[in-house]
Amino acid sequence: MIIDTHAHAVFPQAISSYAADLVASRANPTAGPRQPITDEALHEIMARHIGNMDKVGTDWQIISPRPFMQLHSVDPAKVTQTWVKFNNDTIARQVAMFPDRIKGMAGLPQHRDYDLKPAIDELERAVTELGFVGCLLNPDPGEGGQLPPPGLGEDYWYPLYEKMVELDVPALVHSASSQHSRESYTLKFINEESIAAVSLTESTVFDDFPTLKLIIPHGGGALPYQMGRFHSWSIRRKQESTFLERLGKIWFDTTLYSEDALRLLFNVMGTDRLVFGTERPGTGSAPNPKTGRDFDDTKPTIETLLDAAGQKAVFEDNARTLFGDIF
Amino acid sequence: MIIDTHAHAVFPQAISSYAADLVASRANPTAGPRQPITDEALHEIMARHIGNMDKVGTDWQIISPRPFMQLHSVDPAKVTQTWVKFNNDTIARQVAMFPDRIKGMAGLPQHRDYDLKPAIDELERAVTELGFVGCLLNPDPGEGGQLPPPGLGEDYWYPLYEKMVELDVPALVHSASSQHSRESYTLKFINEESIAAVSLTESTVFDDFPTLKLIIPHGGGALPYQMGRFHSWSIRRKQESTFLERLGKIWFDTTLYSEDALRLLFNVMGTDRLVFGTERPGTGSAPNPKTGRDFDDTKPTIETLLDAAGQKAVFEDNARTLFGDIF
Repeated sequence: MIIDTHAHAVFPQAISSYAADLVASRANPTAGPRQPITDEALHEIMARHIGNMDKVGTDWQIISPRPFMQLHSVDPAKVTQTWVKFNNDTIARQVAMFPDRIKGMAGLPQHRDYDLKPAIDELERAVTELGFVGCLLNPDPGEGGQLPPPGLGEDYWYPLYEKMVELDVPALVHSASSQHSRESYTLKFINEESIAAVSLTESTVFDDFPTLKLIIPHGGGALPYQMGRFHSWSIRRKQESTFLERLGKIWFDTTLYSEDALRLLFNVMGTDRLVFGTERPGTGSAPNPKTGRDFDDTKPTIETLLDAAGQKAVFEDNARTLFGDIF
Repeated sequence: MIIDTHAHAVFPQAISSYAADLVASRANPTAGPRQPITDEALHEIMARHIGNMDKVGTDWQIISPRPFMQLHSVDPAKVTQTWVKFNNDTIARQVAMFPDRIKGMAGLPQHRDYDLKPAIDELERAVTELGFVGCLLNPDPGEGGQLPPPGLGEDYWYPLYEKMVELDVPALVHSASSQHSRESYTLKFINEESIAAVSLTESTVFDDFPTLKLIIPHGGGALPYQMGRFHSWSIRRKQESTFLERLGKIWFDTTLYSEDALRLLFNVMGTDRLVFGTERPGTGSAPNPKTGRDFDDTKPTIETLLDAAGQKAVFEDNARTLFGDIF
């Protein structure tokens, strides 16, 4: 079984227009889309998406809101909350249409004012009422525009971690947009992942929450490639465990689009804490001139790099460990 | 011949104390160190450093100020200027003592107020009066504390590029400190390098300055590892040239501390635009339990990964292309 743990929602255009309306009319953020979003429209676009999964042999996807469109740094916070909640509700409708192919992962209404309470409440609602199986966690809801909140190793995040542990759901650590034109949102994902992982390795988070499940996507940002640097840095500072041992408490996904990168990821990190992810359809949905396949069709590449046991772990078993026996 | 293009100054302790004094007494930043820094003290510490080069078979190093100690985000700007100038003068004294082993690369008094004029003036002074062969360029002199300046692809940087082209010297793109506790300075180096390279690939900088020489250190931050992502992104946006072709106008160095990473770098980027760098002594100066050698002793690893022509290019010829026939 092939479980793709990292994918994002596909919605009809009318829903993007709603986002624009929300941003434009901030005084009245509770109004819904101009036209109601019909079941027919949602079904049509998701059926196409399922066809896209079939094309590359994916049995399941876990679907969350499009990260860059989460409006985390928009004022007032009510806009963010309205929008994220609407996203989750819409994904829940799609999951109900294809209950044997997709599962929902919640967006959280994190906001640049850093109040975590609405995010915690929405996580609880998404899991207990909508049946969602995890959440996105944005380490920089200010989207680069202000001083960021403390790193993921700091106790600012503990109330959210507590709720995740209580509900027994993992978070995919995924930033949203970037307010800096020099740093595209797609590169900010990568940089924030490195920051998140380093902050966690410097902390006692996994001593304080031994069952906390955090997934760093995109093959760990820069870290497996820059492993020697952090390994050495850790030895120079006479830390008790190695950098790799501390990274080993985090989960990572395989959302990388080249054979070289996947090979390095497997060599450096092994497969015990890796889950299959593609973000398809997304940044990698373009034909790779070298292979003829889409960049994000990475299953055939992984099959050439891992033995049967490694494939079973990455494609299926580790996802079951993380998300439970839900597939 | 082995030319290490990426190394930083080693100074006596009294010089760090001077930095602390400068920061503590900002009203009077022009005073020098409490005790004069003697030739004897400078010679002693640099002789030890040269011994360190000999240990790993390095013939030449290009030495610049310690990036994280450049005080770019300290107010008033006069502190930064005094400190950076003092660094350059001190490196020049060391170069005069070991003229057959080290060359000077200037720190620039870039400042969070973003006025490039003092940096351009100091570059001119360092090259024409001190005989320096290049400079550090910090893409975020605010050190994370404010909104960053425009990306390196923007014309904000053009006056500095003009001066570099006029003087025919390269810049090593290297951030300084980080004001965010969640992002160590050492990780900020990596993240800023990815941002710098992506910004350059989105720009017309190398059309406007065909002879401009910019080096992205540490194996290009995250980019060679995340190449598939940016390759695909570029195809999706129907850009005329590939992402790799656009990266090919930039130079990169090999300051990476694992065999996996160096192999990926060579596979992805080839050797035409790569120079040898170690940052030794620095973050990588700790024994690697796997090899028994220091992490930053990477020459033996590179020798196993590249053929003779590749080694000649990376260890020597590309440095001559960049810096001229000065070794």
